Amino acid sequence: MTVSNLNLSSYDHDFLRTWDKSVDHLKATLAVAQTLRDLHKQGISPKVFNTGIAVSIFRDKSTRTKYSYAAAANLLGLEIEDLDEKKSQITHGETIMETVNMLSFLTRTIGIRDDIFLGVGHQYMVEVASAADWGYKNSVLNQRPSVINLQCDEDHPTQSLSDMLHLVNYFGGIEKLRDKKLTMSWAYSPSYGKPMSVPQGVIALMTRFGMNVTLAYPKGYNLIPEIEAYAGREAKKSGGAFRIMNNMEEAFDGADIVYPKSWASYGVMKKRTELLKKKDDKELLALEKEALAQNAKYSSWTCTQHLMRRTKHGKALYMHCLPADISGVSCKQGEVEASVFDAFKKETYAQAGYKPFIIAAMILLTQFGEKTPEILSRIAKRKLPLVAV
Amino acid sequence: MTVSNLNLSSYDHDFLRTWDKSVDHLKATLAVAQTLRDLHKQGISPKVFNTGIAVSIFRDKSTRTKYSYAAAANLLGLEIEDLDEKKSQITHGETIMETVNMLSFLTRTIGIRDDIFLGVGHQYMVEVASAADWGYKNSVLNQRPSVINLQCDEDHPTQSLSDMLHLVNYFGGIEKLRDKKLTMSWAYSPSYGKPMSVPQGVIALMTRFGMNVTLAYPKGYNLIPEIEAYAGREAKKSGGAFRIMNNMEEAFDGADIVYPKSWASYGVMKKRTELLKKKDDKELLALEKEALAQNAKYSSWTCTQHLMRRTKHGKALYMHCLPADISGVSCKQGEVEASVFDAFKKETYAQAGYKPFIIAAMILLTQFGEKTPEILSRIAKRKLPLVAV
Amino acid sequence: MTVSNLNLSSYDHDFLRTWDKSVDHLKATLAVAQTLRDLHKQGISPKVFNTGIAVSIFRDKSTRTKYSYAAAANLLGLEIEDLDEKKSQITHGETIMETVNMLSFLTRTIGIRDDIFLGVGHQYMVEVASAADWGYKNSVLNQRPSVINLQCDEDHPTQSLSDMLHLVNYFGGIEKLRDKKLTMSWAYSPSYGKPMSVPQGVIALMTRFGMNVTLAYPKGYNLIPEIEAYAGREAKKSGGAFRIMNNMEEAFDGADIVYPKSWASYGVMKKRTELLKKKDDKELLALEKEALAQNAKYSSWTCTQHLMRRTKHGKALYMHCLPADISGVSCKQGEVEASVFDAFKKETYAQAGYKPFIIAAMILLTQFGEKTPEILSRIAKRKLPLVAV
Repeated sequence: MTVSNLNLSSYDHDFLRTWDKSVDHLKATLAVAQTLRDLHKQGISPKVFNTGIAVSIFRDKSTRTKYSYAAAANLLGLEIEDLDEKKSQITHGETIMETVNMLSFLTRTIGIRDDIFLGVGHQYMVEVASAADWGYKNSVLNQRPSVINLQCDEDHPTQSLSDMLHLVNYFGGIEKLRDKKLTMSWAYSPSYGKPMSVPQGVIALMTRFGMNVTLAYPKGYNLIPEIEAYAGREAKKSGGAFRIMNNMEEAFDGADIVYPKSWASYGVMKKRTELLKKKDDKELLALEKEALAQNAKYSSWTCTQHLMRRTKHGKALYMHCLPADISGVSCKQGEVEASVFDAFKKETYAQAGYKPFIIAAMILLTQFGEKTPEILSRIAKRKLPLVAV
Repeated sequence: MTVSNLNLSSYDHDFLRTWDKSVDHLKATLAVAQTLRDLHKQGISPKVFNTGIAVSIFRDKSTRTKYSYAAAANLLGLEIEDLDEKKSQITHGETIMETVNMLSFLTRTIGIRDDIFLGVGHQYMVEVASAADWGYKNSVLNQRPSVINLQCDEDHPTQSLSDMLHLVNYFGGIEKLRDKKLTMSWAYSPSYGKPMSVPQGVIALMTRFGMNVTLAYPKGYNLIPEIEAYAGREAKKSGGAFRIMNNMEEAFDGADIVYPKSWASYGVMKKRTELLKKKDDKELLALEKEALAQNAKYSSWTCTQHLMRRTKHGKALYMHCLPADISGVSCKQGEVEASVFDAFKKETYAQAGYKPFIIAAMILLTQFGEKTPEILSRIAKRKLPLVAV
Repeated sequence: MTVSNLNLSSYDHDFLRTWDKSVDHLKATLAVAQTLRDLHKQGISPKVFNTGIAVSIFRDKSTRTKYSYAAAANLLGLEIEDLDEKKSQITHGETIMETVNMLSFLTRTIGIRDDIFLGVGHQYMVEVASAADWGYKNSVLNQRPSVINLQCDEDHPTQSLSDMLHLVNYFGGIEKLRDKKLTMSWAYSPSYGKPMSVPQGVIALMTRFGMNVTLAYPKGYNLIPEIEAYAGREAKKSGGAFRIMNNMEEAFDGADIVYPKSWASYGVMKKRTELLKKKDDKELLALEKEALAQNAKYSSWTCTQHLMRRTKHGKALYMHCLPADISGVSCKQGEVEASVFDAFKKETYAQAGYKPFIIAAMILLTQFGEKTPEILSRIAKRKLPLVAV
């Protein structure tokens, strides 16, 4: 993969959703991340900032992505400043416009996780980006900080692009992904309210690269309808395929890649968001109970060794964004059998390991746009060692 | 503004209150901050430390100042270590002497916000500075860390100096501030217990530079008497003026600058501190209720468009330390009308934007004293870019 | 002290307990720390990493060690990423294997404090180290992060080695410690459940260097039996001495060094761990009450001026890991009289001041092993100033 032949014009200041980006922009993100990872393996530092702040705003729990964002920022020379909304003066009254400007005077990037409420997370990020625009245009800010989506209600681009870079390396090139059969399947979990952004991110991204994507879930567990429709259209455009099935076994048949993962359905998420806005705790509890009971009906939707045998030559690659609900390990009965998870442990960990480099690539491309290839080549030539002495 | 002709001798290791500093020291702080800001705009890094720690101790909520301190530290090459008193072993027993020494082995600066209790915040900072002195003199510490006041019960120097640098840039020079009419006015807010340090900081600083300062508040809402008296004396010395009025409308007449902001009165603050020491929760609640009821009598003390028309040519600069209580935005009825706030949004945000550079200037001057001009000129010559590649 | 003549082979990737290390490895740790401290005094930076992460995991409160770890990381060019287990997705289910790998992609060191439960802390660190091994061997990680024990249930090596380096500097050389009489004594404190790791660390370390170590405690307050036995064996090997006494006064007789400090006995700790596992809150409360009552019987075990007069020429060095329970200062009646503590304040603070350099030495040696002397000599030659301009 190389960035030199890609059209990077209009790579804008933010990375909110993969579907806001051209295929060339996505390829560039993958290629830059791969280069940064290769350089890191060789002990070469891509530090491009002498000083600068990377603000992080986490409105939901995070281990992997929080670490990955911090590691990416550090790799490029930025320091994390975490906004703890509880310890700040941000009350219901302070506007997003104000908070964003107050946190951006010396800031290069703002990473945000806001994935709990349907219709809220992405919208918040759009407002943050627009506040940053305003501040930059009005000379409040000396530079325009990038807004990076670290998971919203719609997409989880740092995850889906890490997933894709893992596939590129696993299969030996981005062109090798064409026609590969990927099954993104719902799987049973005893927990409630897992976001839809991972499956949405995966189907919306992979269909643009000619992959043969199957989305499988029990009836009623559909994702945001517009995103399912988008995946269908993009599959046609790219020469790939997209279908939805309600049978996990059949969806596994002949798959090159399987990605079994639990999520709460669009219907439940919509209802939950309404109840949360109404602060109707009683109805919320009832909804949780109902959704868990509903899930329990599909406890057979679990990734077993038996099921894996139905995949192509019984050798499909198992993927997960982690942490997985592993039967007998992290719960009684969950998304995946321990033997399957263990066999692919190295692979799922490697899959997660792309994330710091994907985020670093997003920071470089949103900050430097078309100049990124030149900057990368200067980094490669400079050969600044990770170990400085 | 230039530092070369200023007397920087005896610029000591701490920045606790502007009234501890000579006029030359204050001018130097402004000039260094302006230089750092100009260099930053040009993409030049003033990083002066290869490594080093900036400890932060926040005993009250903060967004703007916390960020500004972190950004300033990072700009100079220091890393933040936040003391979370709850997660530390600091019990009632551990002495300030010990804590300060334990946190200073590799520390260049200690930034503190302690603004809730009258008679406590400044005193705490004095003890921290004295503990740092002891450690340095007794070879426990290899360097004397600077103590920087990030808001105490008496002063808020990083705010008042940011305010002043904003005025210098707005009016085109420090000499242009002479005789400018600044009205620092109490304004209504539905909240309770806002510190007096901002208005105290403003009147104590601006009167030293020949400004014509009016302090306006409803009867009974006076500030610490010694600080009001100080402002009066300094106005005389500097050829400026200082008066106290109990009428917001009249105070706005002909003003070049208005700074309408809520605070709790000295009387309430004194009573509150006593009750807090006694841990008399019942009386504290009664005091809060009483103070809020008292405030409500003055809900007409709000900065309206109508009022702004009474200022010089109807064009006074509106200032606020943020966040403001904006009527119809952050509360039903507050310090300022939305239309006034919106018209000056860019200005109030810019005002806040000086703070990281003011703090960085304080760190440089408290660490390097008379050597600061030489260090600044080396920074300018070195031209280390913010973007390192 | 010099590292050049020491055998550094098989200095492994972790620093978990001093008894896992050879005497040469321990001497190297002290010598490297001393060199780093000397360089710092001369204003020379030992920054060896251009970027990189230092993960910290604190499962118990900390001020001194947390700061020291952060300062050490910063001194070498690493940035702290603190794992807040409550804000992370680490539930009971996620394996240590997974968490460690997820937090190590760009990580050089993982510092851990886990000192509350007997039989848990050290075991946890062993699992973390083994997970890091697995990740490195399976190419999930580009580098093997060091695991540094910041206090476990068995040892507190950053403390005991700081203590030892303090003694080396106080007495003028490591060879001067031979036959010096050190009394590690239990002392009364009104608090409950203090870990045994400090006294265990001290007796296990000091006996290996030919010191004449006395461990004193009231009957029943013994430490982990295996560690007491180890100290006895090592004293014999090194030509030193080790004895256990149940009388504080006699233990002080003729001592060169006294280290009076409270701890909960092995018996109490064992029972407490069992009850915690059973979550038997009622019995836990009963145990606390019983243990405090037991302690109260020995309130005369306190370090007084009177007692100090029994030491060699009445001039023994008083040591403490801090914070001490000082009678009349941090509690009514505690481990030490205020007059004794005050007389040695400078010394105990200096003792604590070695810790950042000990930790930095551990990071260097665990990361670079046999190459450390060469790296140190390059640092000394490079003369990178702490102040960069």
